[in-house]
Amino acid sequence: MNEDDVRLLSANEAFYDAFAARDLAGMDALWSRERPVTCIHPGWNALSGRDAVMASWRAIFRSDDVHIEATDARTHLLGDAAYVICFEGSPGAAPVLVATNVFVREDGGWSLVHHQAGQLARSPAPAASKPAN
Amino acid sequence: MNEDDVRLLSANEAFYDAFAARDLAGMDALWSRERPVTCIHPGWNALSGRDAVMASWRAIFRSDDVHIEATDARTHLLGDAAYVICFEGSPGAAPVLVATNVFVREDGGWSLVHHQAGQLARSPAPAASKPAN
Repeated sequence: MNEDDVRLLSANEAFYDAFAARDLAGMDALWSRERPVTCIHPGWNALSGRDAVMASWRAIFRSDDVHIEATDARTHLLGDAAYVICFEGSPGAAPVLVATNVFVREDGGWSLVHHQAGQLARSPAPAASKPAN
Repeated sequence: MNEDDVRLLSANEAFYDAFAARDLAGMDALWSRERPVTCIHPGWNALSGRDAVMASWRAIFRSDDVHIEATDARTHLLGDAAYVICFEGSPGAAPVLVATNVFVREDGGWSLVHHQAGQLARSPAPAASKPAN
């Protein structure tokens, strides 16, 4: 694992740390200031622009129930951009969501430009043609 | 809209054309040969690697019911990478999914490295704190 991957995983962890801690300032600091940002929460429409994205985090952080942990994060470097795929769930429980987090190089680190999380299969056993889980 | 955006939208359209036509060779040609590829179909687990991703398209194309159209595609350029957000649904119907498609520059064009599609909200009216739809 090279230094880019290490920094990228660290940025991805910081995102979930801010998420779990309902740390709005920490969350705000992780998102790019140089690029437009976008976000697709599970079952929501696509949000575009820093105001809409940060308003969504404020709304989520107001809820009583934010228990989240990311597992099995995998980095995918694309030059000055990158994406991380990881799984999301309550700490210690099986993951229920899978996420794509897109980053860009900014100020010597990696800043978020996009997050999409969606449901994993919940059925007990997927069909052979659908290799979910 | 600059030439990068035009080519990116064209690559995104080619993806949905191959999808709708169940064109396996066309689909295969759209995915990067220089980078590892990944794919998250709605409700599936994350697929990693060309073999797994192309096997998923073969499985999907074997089903009887592939009616798909992409609408409202928006490009997001990140240097030599880019992502497109668009909505997916049956032609002429309201979209039911929202997708993130990640591309890299390759051979003078844009090649897919990642696709994630997930459900849009299906409830009649979202809560005020959740600006879905």
